[in-house]
Amino acid sequence: MRSISEYRQEFLKYLDEKIEVKEPRNLYEPMRYILQLGGKRLRPVLVLMATEIFDADYRKALDAALAIEIFHNFSLVHDDIMDDAPIRRGKKTVHEKWDINTGILSGDAMLINAYQLFENYEEKVFKELAQLFTKTAMEVCEGQQYDMDFEAREDVQIEDYLKMIEYKTAVLVGASLQMGAIVAETPRECKDAIYQYGRLLGIAFQLQDDYLDAFGDPEAFGKQVGGDIIENKKTFLYLKALEASGEREARQLQHLYSISPIENSGKIEAVKAIFESSGAAELTRAEIKKYTKKAFAVLNEIDLQEDKKEPLRKFGETLMERQV
Amino acid sequence: MRSISEYRQEFLKYLDEKIEVKEPRNLYEPMRYILQLGGKRLRPVLVLMATEIFDADYRKALDAALAIEIFHNFSLVHDDIMDDAPIRRGKKTVHEKWDINTGILSGDAMLINAYQLFENYEEKVFKELAQLFTKTAMEVCEGQQYDMDFEAREDVQIEDYLKMIEYKTAVLVGASLQMGAIVAETPRECKDAIYQYGRLLGIAFQLQDDYLDAFGDPEAFGKQVGGDIIENKKTFLYLKALEASGEREARQLQHLYSISPIENSGKIEAVKAIFESSGAAELTRAEIKKYTKKAFAVLNEIDLQEDKKEPLRKFGETLMERQV
Repeated sequence: MRSISEYRQEFLKYLDEKIEVKEPRNLYEPMRYILQLGGKRLRPVLVLMATEIFDADYRKALDAALAIEIFHNFSLVHDDIMDDAPIRRGKKTVHEKWDINTGILSGDAMLINAYQLFENYEEKVFKELAQLFTKTAMEVCEGQQYDMDFEAREDVQIEDYLKMIEYKTAVLVGASLQMGAIVAETPRECKDAIYQYGRLLGIAFQLQDDYLDAFGDPEAFGKQVGGDIIENKKTFLYLKALEASGEREARQLQHLYSISPIENSGKIEAVKAIFESSGAAELTRAEIKKYTKKAFAVLNEIDLQEDKKEPLRKFGETLMERQV
Repeated sequence: MRSISEYRQEFLKYLDEKIEVKEPRNLYEPMRYILQLGGKRLRPVLVLMATEIFDADYRKALDAALAIEIFHNFSLVHDDIMDDAPIRRGKKTVHEKWDINTGILSGDAMLINAYQLFENYEEKVFKELAQLFTKTAMEVCEGQQYDMDFEAREDVQIEDYLKMIEYKTAVLVGASLQMGAIVAETPRECKDAIYQYGRLLGIAFQLQDDYLDAFGDPEAFGKQVGGDIIENKKTFLYLKALEASGEREARQLQHLYSISPIENSGKIEAVKAIFESSGAAELTRAEIKKYTKKAFAVLNEIDLQEDKKEPLRKFGETLMERQV
């Protein structure tokens, strides 16, 4: 087994070889641009890792890993247009650097290109990969739609929110791991179990992301703390605070979430104070722990040698210990 | 063999059954809306027709036909955003009826949904269909990119234009026919030949579309004649006129293509006069005939009984005789 950073290195080498800019350049340049912007490459690393855990050569899975990374970046390009986001990983987003039309069309081409990468697998594996990919991609779209719908809705429930992050984020983590299992031609039960591990870890990961957005260390976080609060995002913290606080406090929180002051720090502090006093902060930490535990319980049950599970457990632990 | 309108009926029944609006509604409603707007359904009819020509039951091809129609409508939704088009088939475009974000995301979901429809085929056929679909979809994106690039370019050549319409329009006609052949599990040579027939017919079809946009009967055409001229579109007619006319006339044409008067009729008449006097109109008619002839020559060579070829020939003739 290789280390996470070794897998990442191998993946980046492959990415660089495979992503070429051909004609028409305005279609393919934005693709290379966004794929070279960096990022943790968690999803492709998970594909490669899962392949070796199930006793196949990780190199067999490089195309599947690249497909997942291209899909992830497709969703970033289109989401950034929808969210009107100017910056991604410290650089201009595609629609800012070029224009919206370029972002739409290059994104489309990336989605199609992801399917193309599965073509190097034989028919049976091809169908299984494409089918999982399609199901997952559809759920990611549904998750993004729920996310946009929630902005205008006042009746979002905690379970709605959990479903949204499951679809928008977690299923792709599960699918990454399952793709490795598919390439390795593992039995059905293993494929399903590793998917569940990824899905549960993905939910925990996203809840923690929300938590750190409010309570992370500003220095370590590297970006403005409280971004979700500024944008009045109905995160788990917010929904839990509404649920857990008394009527007066809830009204106050709703009021704070209806304003957009130019100077935000007062609003951020007031909201965070309610997140703490209502118990929402603590309940969120408990929820993160709950999903992490569930994930590890699933991992324990997988029919796999202990030493094979270790890197997956390690990966999960590193992910959940992060302060960033 | 059924008639074109019978295939269309069967297809529409299937479409209506299969396209359901589920949650999240804002994702699936625009999909149903655009798919119900009408249109000639040429591409799915071709899929069904080709399947029966190669001796399989057309019902086996309904999912492939639906995939092609959904893909075609996906490209309309995204193209309408890029072209800022408010109206499609006499009704509001998706991004006008909803908004741009809805158009982007519903379009993405449609592209993914098209792949989903292939899942009902067994592994070998599935891979062949998905692979053809991916190649074609990528070319359609490239064609759309070339089309957008041409707006800003002053050095577009006739061969560039022909490649653009081949990618943007013709390959999908070829792919529709080939999908029927794939579902019917026809030998490779037949699959290739029927694809070529569709591709060549598709080029002729698009050239004729351009021709009718300028010289069609305004009454029969049902829309404003001269739309491409108003938008200064570098069509075959325009490029051929530049090539075939003397320096003075060419400069005049370029001037006319640099202005956007509020009252267009004078500009349209002047441009059309140059299209005629330069010989471009006649040369375009000749080019249409050339591609139609090539298409029929390919059809003649296909290893197929005469009575099987007849409906395909008929389809091509009907298409090329249209005044609309």
